[in-house]
Amino acid sequence: MVNDEALIAHLLTRMAEILQRYGREEENLKVLSKPLPASQLRPLFDQHMALPEQGAKDKAGSDTEAAEDILGLVETILQHSARTVSPRFMDKLYAGSDAIGQIAELVIAVLNTNVHVYSVSPVATLMEHACIHALSEAVGFATPCSGVFSPGGSASNLLAMTTARNTLFPDLKRVGAARSGQLLTVFTSVEAHYSIQKSAIVMGLGSDSVVAIPVNAAGYGGSGVGGGIDPVELRNLIQQSAGLGETPFFINLTAGTTVLSSFDPIQECVAAVRALEAELGRKIWIHVDGSYGGPVIFSKKWKERLFRGIELVDSITLNPHKILGVPQQCSVLLVNSDRWGRKVLWEANGLRADYLFHDSEMSPGLPTTPSVREGEEDNGFMMDMGDATIGCGRKADAVKLFICWTFHGTQGWARRVDKALENVDTLARLFASSKQFQLVIPFSKESQDEVYGGGRLTVGVWCIPQALQSRYGQLQEFMNQSKNPKSSAHVLLKRITKLVHVELTRRGRFMIDFMGLKWQDLPDFIRVAVSSDRIDNALLHELFNELEGIVSRVEVVDFEQGIVSLREE
Amino acid sequence: MVNDEALIAHLLTRMAEILQRYGREEENLKVLSKPLPASQLRPLFDQHMALPEQGAKDKAGSDTEAAEDILGLVETILQHSARTVSPRFMDKLYAGSDAIGQIAELVIAVLNTNVHVYSVSPVATLMEHACIHALSEAVGFATPCSGVFSPGGSASNLLAMTTARNTLFPDLKRVGAARSGQLLTVFTSVEAHYSIQKSAIVMGLGSDSVVAIPVNAAGYGGSGVGGGIDPVELRNLIQQSAGLGETPFFINLTAGTTVLSSFDPIQECVAAVRALEAELGRKIWIHVDGSYGGPVIFSKKWKERLFRGIELVDSITLNPHKILGVPQQCSVLLVNSDRWGRKVLWEANGLRADYLFHDSEMSPGLPTTPSVREGEEDNGFMMDMGDATIGCGRKADAVKLFICWTFHGTQGWARRVDKALENVDTLARLFASSKQFQLVIPFSKESQDEVYGGGRLTVGVWCIPQALQSRYGQLQEFMNQSKNPKSSAHVLLKRITKLVHVELTRRGRFMIDFMGLKWQDLPDFIRVAVSSDRIDNALLHELFNELEGIVSRVEVVDFEQGIVSLREE
Repeated sequence: MVNDEALIAHLLTRMAEILQRYGREEENLKVLSKPLPASQLRPLFDQHMALPEQGAKDKAGSDTEAAEDILGLVETILQHSARTVSPRFMDKLYAGSDAIGQIAELVIAVLNTNVHVYSVSPVATLMEHACIHALSEAVGFATPCSGVFSPGGSASNLLAMTTARNTLFPDLKRVGAARSGQLLTVFTSVEAHYSIQKSAIVMGLGSDSVVAIPVNAAGYGGSGVGGGIDPVELRNLIQQSAGLGETPFFINLTAGTTVLSSFDPIQECVAAVRALEAELGRKIWIHVDGSYGGPVIFSKKWKERLFRGIELVDSITLNPHKILGVPQQCSVLLVNSDRWGRKVLWEANGLRADYLFHDSEMSPGLPTTPSVREGEEDNGFMMDMGDATIGCGRKADAVKLFICWTFHGTQGWARRVDKALENVDTLARLFASSKQFQLVIPFSKESQDEVYGGGRLTVGVWCIPQALQSRYGQLQEFMNQSKNPKSSAHVLLKRITKLVHVELTRRGRFMIDFMGLKWQDLPDFIRVAVSSDRIDNALLHELFNELEGIVSRVEVVDFEQGIVSLREE
Repeated sequence: MVNDEALIAHLLTRMAEILQRYGREEENLKVLSKPLPASQLRPLFDQHMALPEQGAKDKAGSDTEAAEDILGLVETILQHSARTVSPRFMDKLYAGSDAIGQIAELVIAVLNTNVHVYSVSPVATLMEHACIHALSEAVGFATPCSGVFSPGGSASNLLAMTTARNTLFPDLKRVGAARSGQLLTVFTSVEAHYSIQKSAIVMGLGSDSVVAIPVNAAGYGGSGVGGGIDPVELRNLIQQSAGLGETPFFINLTAGTTVLSSFDPIQECVAAVRALEAELGRKIWIHVDGSYGGPVIFSKKWKERLFRGIELVDSITLNPHKILGVPQQCSVLLVNSDRWGRKVLWEANGLRADYLFHDSEMSPGLPTTPSVREGEEDNGFMMDMGDATIGCGRKADAVKLFICWTFHGTQGWARRVDKALENVDTLARLFASSKQFQLVIPFSKESQDEVYGGGRLTVGVWCIPQALQSRYGQLQEFMNQSKNPKSSAHVLLKRITKLVHVELTRRGRFMIDFMGLKWQDLPDFIRVAVSSDRIDNALLHELFNELEGIVSRVEVVDFEQGIVSLREE
């Protein structure tokens, strides 16, 4: 048996070969080598993925030999998984990780510690503080600040909501909602992520407690689609809820919605809510879900346009694992310490389990361990972070962000954000230039010279094959009809979207998702996300040509029944 | 600029050198090179850990040069962090990861996908299914089974509690607790992990809803300390709660408590609760928090003793990142499909966000993408896993477990568990043989020939320096007095524990935690956890000698005031 340090060295050397091969451009031309259903994919693995009684370690003659079995498995995994590392993966709001991020994840696995108490994770704890500090500065929150990393945007949003409830109504922590009878209500845009609704359900508020705010009818495209929350509507709905005897307590604004990456107008919403606070005589927590668009704060130009007023909100979620490309998971919740102090996360969520968080009482004059010696704080930060969360231990995700930030710098983050916004603009203009496409958020005459959609990170587009163009001429009436889900126009567009998506996926050169907007009854459309920093103009043109090529093959078999088909190449 | 594949290959080759050095035994003699407070640790990093405007990538002449800066940072991180990879790290319930686990984490970072929908994570989804299937078989749950990976034991326990509530009272999902007015109650042992209480608070039940069940007075040591839940008390307290008009709905049994790794008697508790179900005319959810002890199911012998009746409960949390050594985070919740069907997690927690989870409606006769083609299921499993959780995307943690399981095999897991239990027994006997120590759970005369404490994964011990031995003779009266937190005996033991802990930490050869048991007013003691599979007899003797050496240097300056000090070496 070789020593573990020899084994890891051997494995890493072999992984270097494997990943070099994996990364080669020619192999990257297909994002997913062949999309297979489970019944066909499973048999490609030994014994159809049955986990063995006897491990490779026992079966093989040596650990090095067993390691080869594992590396064989790794190659099979890589071969049949989606290559998110390719810039052609534009399917989800995350993209691939880079080499630095991958190494950072390896380091975290070697450290294999938990960021619950400083004593076992001194460096990781300080790096978490450093990241929270730097992010708070970028947002414009006061420092010393308050924040904590969580395993994903949904978890950060849930933590924001529990922190708000436990801070505003501390008694509820003990007596619970049923005994208190207080009807807390939550407000969020119709286009917001479902984690807000899920959080309200988890917290026992119930989905009925979530009030959906319409987006501004003056939004891009004039249809309300892709607009931000209407502050007047927000104010009215909060007042209406309070008038019913409910307690409005949590407003979620979205910075970059999931489907169309819309940004709610923060400053206007904050003004509306803060005015109501005075009127109602109690505080209301304003959270910004920046799970997708949060990193836009790094771009001076775009922060000014899309995040005006951000320093006035109570908390914000950011996911460096999306457009910053830090490996998943990497999400953080920042709380405005100007409004709630530095210890609000601990006060709201803490239980001070004394088997874990040791007090600093000590025999007089004796030395103590570091976390005790300086008390519980350093430099304005709390040292033992576990009790600030709704859990206990956490993976040291901040170490990844720290390492990647050291490599890319704040300037690198800003460039990455600027490029993403620019790429969306370029792609949208390509779609706008062609009759084969209709943008979900069109360029209006006034906005033609502006950046697409006021600054966005996704593009949604319907495909309009020749048959539709010939039959419907100007198409505007057809597009209007399609908003009725029972219309053949709606069914046609939806099925064309799926048909194009299936063919795009089968060809495998790009991986892109499709979706609709249910609250508006919009038929499904293709949605392109551009989080990878390796997307360039040439690739966007290639994508456009790929889609155009597929759309040109779409035939309509029956307009009334909405039957569509694809011509052979 | 080098290509990313060249950069990762370069970095991995260099990491192979770095980790080989890191793993060398002589460097491993100190678990933490020097425990430093934040104010002294921070300056050891460039610019005191300020994150740079200009990244290493921009500052350096080439990516390879910038990579060297990052590797320098990595070496500094490794140098000042706790070496959990050393078997001398016995501080927390987790231990170090091994080379296979570290490589698996690297692979997950390269895949960088989310296990929310099958289409972007086909292999990871199938591996998650394979792990859930194999774990369910090991537990004894029916298959096809139901389960999902979560970011840690607290998250799995919270998911169990929301799943129970939403399944038993589906209306609450919509109307919420305040409108329903139903007073749900939760039952758990006084020695249980605080995540049960935190979950109840998050869910709006309030900490008042959590009823603490005493542990059995007939437990090891005859004191109740380290015993399991008393099934008669459990039954009485549930009846009492129901009698008050409350709705008992969630029983948490612990398999391996945090402090003393006690196992609640599952079969007896299940019998008591199921009898009450008939009496009360409604179902009650029985969850087992096996965050620590769960993997004991892999040992036939120990499963029979510590998990009797497990196949009858409703759900169980297991954390392969603790005694199985899979890198953090790796936690899973399994639900008994015999009781609730295969889809219970989706039904309880799902919202079917249609921008993410596409339905299978399609134009007649057309091909569709794999996840759609087979409908939503394969082989009895649901394919799109995101909606089974309270979040959305999740890191593909199951891939780690799959890879590690392939290497170690079920037999390897069983050996690891057996060895941990054996190591605890060996260490406890060493402590029992010396006058300088008092086990928190002593060997009773009847249990002398048994495995320590009926089978445990931790040892708790008080240090009894010579001065105490001389002054108190048989010590029994002193130990009894120490249960009064105002007694000098209590203060003395607590301070001696801290003194020994500080010296142990300063010497750096072992890293071990200390804690008390507040519900019993026990003074703090040293608690040793033995999750690493690299702990052998020689190391346990070394630990014993190390502790004995420190204890022999403890002097009592003032018995009444509880002032203690340490003689120079």
